[in-house]
Amino acid sequence: MKPVTLQDIADQLGISVTTVSKALKDYPDVSAKTKALVKELATTLNYKPNAFAVNLRTKESKTVGLIIPVIVHHFFSNVIKGIIAEAEAKGYLVIILQSNERYDMEKKHLDLLMNQRVDGIMISLANDTVDFKHLNDVIAADKPMIMFDKIAKTVNCSKVIIDDRQAAYDATQHLIDIGCQRIAHFRGSLLPQNSIDRFLGYRKALRDNDIPYDASLVYICECDDLSFEEGQNNARQLLLDHNDVDGIFINTDLVAIGAISEFNKQGIKIPEQISIVGFSNWFMSSIISPSLTTIDQPGLEMGRSVFKQLYKEIQQLKRDEKVDYQQIVLPTQLIQRDSTLKVK
Amino acid sequence: MKPVTLQDIADQLGISVTTVSKALKDYPDVSAKTKALVKELATTLNYKPNAFAVNLRTKESKTVGLIIPVIVHHFFSNVIKGIIAEAEAKGYLVIILQSNERYDMEKKHLDLLMNQRVDGIMISLANDTVDFKHLNDVIAADKPMIMFDKIAKTVNCSKVIIDDRQAAYDATQHLIDIGCQRIAHFRGSLLPQNSIDRFLGYRKALRDNDIPYDASLVYICECDDLSFEEGQNNARQLLLDHNDVDGIFINTDLVAIGAISEFNKQGIKIPEQISIVGFSNWFMSSIISPSLTTIDQPGLEMGRSVFKQLYKEIQQLKRDEKVDYQQIVLPTQLIQRDSTLKVK
Repeated sequence: MKPVTLQDIADQLGISVTTVSKALKDYPDVSAKTKALVKELATTLNYKPNAFAVNLRTKESKTVGLIIPVIVHHFFSNVIKGIIAEAEAKGYLVIILQSNERYDMEKKHLDLLMNQRVDGIMISLANDTVDFKHLNDVIAADKPMIMFDKIAKTVNCSKVIIDDRQAAYDATQHLIDIGCQRIAHFRGSLLPQNSIDRFLGYRKALRDNDIPYDASLVYICECDDLSFEEGQNNARQLLLDHNDVDGIFINTDLVAIGAISEFNKQGIKIPEQISIVGFSNWFMSSIISPSLTTIDQPGLEMGRSVFKQLYKEIQQLKRDEKVDYQQIVLPTQLIQRDSTLKVK
Repeated sequence: MKPVTLQDIADQLGISVTTVSKALKDYPDVSAKTKALVKELATTLNYKPNAFAVNLRTKESKTVGLIIPVIVHHFFSNVIKGIIAEAEAKGYLVIILQSNERYDMEKKHLDLLMNQRVDGIMISLANDTVDFKHLNDVIAADKPMIMFDKIAKTVNCSKVIIDDRQAAYDATQHLIDIGCQRIAHFRGSLLPQNSIDRFLGYRKALRDNDIPYDASLVYICECDDLSFEEGQNNARQLLLDHNDVDGIFINTDLVAIGAISEFNKQGIKIPEQISIVGFSNWFMSSIISPSLTTIDQPGLEMGRSVFKQLYKEIQQLKRDEKVDYQQIVLPTQLIQRDSTLKVK
C-alpha cells in the first residue's frame, strides 16, 4: 500500500497542501472547521509525516522557483537572464513557471513549488491576482519569497521594483516639455500595481502642469501577447475619437510599436503630428522607424537584484537570524529618440 | 537522524542520481566499478529506498518538465505557449528550465527533473550538446521524453521537427527563382542538427541549379541573444569581403533584421541590390522596412504536437503498453514579402 501524503489529504478535501500542512500544525490562520476536517481525515487515512516532508524543511535543494506572468515579454526575458546569471554563480538551478497572467495558474504553481524542494521563490504577479492568501501562506511557512515588478503592496516580504509613478511622470513631463498639450495614455490593465502607478504618474504630471485630465484620452490594453495588435487598435480608435491629440505616453514598447505602425500606415507623421513615449526600452525600439523614445526599465539588473535578495534571506533563515525584508527601488531613465524630436 | 537518500549517495560520489539509481538496480549501462562503489556506500550509509522514491514510479504528479535552450527566442516562446495550452487542457503543470545553450546546464536540469516527480520530459538541445548519455539515461529509466526542434538523431525517442533541409532548400530556390546568382548564407552554430540541415538544404539548392558552392559565402552566427548584433556584424563583414553578393539566406529572422538594419544604414538597397530570406516568421518580420521574406516555422503547432505526443506516451506507459515512438515532421511555408520582390 502506498503511504498517504499531504497531497492526498489536500486532494480529498479540495484544499491546498499548504493549508493541510498548516492545519496539522495548528497555524492560527487556518479555520477551526478546516483543522477539524484535516485532522479527522489524517487519522482516518492513517497519515504519517514522511521522511521526504521532513527533508523539505531541513535540507537545501539548491533549487529556486520563479513564477512569471509571461515569459515571451522582453522585459521578463531580461529579468530571467539576470536571475539565472546570479543563481548559477551561487550554484542554484532555477525552475520557471508561467502563470499566463492568471490567478488560478499562479496559485497552482505556488503550491507546486511549495511541494517541490525549492529553497526560495521569486514571483511577479498575474494581472488578475487580487487575493493574496496564497502569498501569505508562503510567508507563514517560512519560505523565503521575493516579489518583483508586479507586486502586492500589502504582502509582507521583500520587493524589487522600479518607481513606476516617477518614471511615468518623467515620460509625461517630457511630452509636455516638447510642447504637447493633449496627451493620451495607453495604459495596462486595471489591476496590476505598476499599471495603476504609471497611470497616476501620468495624471500627476498633467496636474502639475495645469493640463486638465480627460478620462476619454486613457485607453486600456491588456498587454498580453497580442500587445502589438492592441497598439494598432488603440491608435486606430484614438484617431476616430480625437483629432487634437499631439502626444501619447504608452505603457509598454510593444504596444507603442503597434501604434507607430498604425500611424505610419495612416500617414500620420511622428513626431510632427503626434509624439510618442514608450516604456521598457526593448532593443527593437531603436530599430523601428521612427525610433521610439522610451523609459529604460532595467530588467537584467532587476533579475540580479531579486536573486541576490533571495539568496540573502535563504542564508539568514539557515542561520536562524531574523529575515530582514527590503524594498529595493531601481532607477529608470528616459531615452530620447526620434518619436519625440522637439518640433514645436 | 535524517534518512539517507539517493541524492546523498550521488553527492558523495560526484555522480548523478540516475546513475546511483541504475547502479542499485544493476542496469547494464553502468560500469562494474561504479556499481561496486555505489553499493558499498549504500551499505555503509544504511540506505533504504524510501516511500517517496517508490511513489516516483507509481504515482502521477501531473507535472511535466521542459528544457529549452533560450526562452527569449520568439520561436521557443511560441513553442512554450503551445505546450502550456495543451498541458493545461489535460490538467498538467509545466516546469520550464533554460539551458542557456549549455550542455552542463542541460545535464543538471535533466537530473533535477528526474529527481522531481515529473511525469515526462520535453527537450530541445543546447548548441554545444554532443554527448547524449544524459538523454539515453532518461529513456533507460522509462521516463517518457520527446525531443523537438534541436534533436539528436541517434537518440531513440519520439521527435517533433520541421524538415529544415527542405525549408532551407525552398528559401534558397526562391532567391534563385527571382534571379540571384551569388547567394550567401548566414548559418547557425556548427553543432545543432537544424543548423546543419539548413546549411545542407542551401547547398543542395545551389547544386541543383548549377551554381558553384563557395565556402567563403557562408557566415556563422551563434544565434544567441546577441543575434541582432551578429546580423549587423555579418552584414558589415560581407560587404567588405564580397561586392557581388545579390542574395542571402539567413538562419533566423532576428539575425536577418540585424542585417537589414546594417544594409539600410550603409545605403544598400533591399531587394534591388541584395535580396534577403529569413527563417521563423517572427511577427516583427512584417513590421520592419523592408518587410522580410521568411520561412514560417510553426512554433505554436510544434508545442501542441510535442505535448500531445508526450501525453500519449504517458498513457501508454501507464497501461503498460509498448510505447510507440513517432517522428513527426511539421510543414513549413515560404512567406514572400518586400525583401525579395522580383526585381530582375
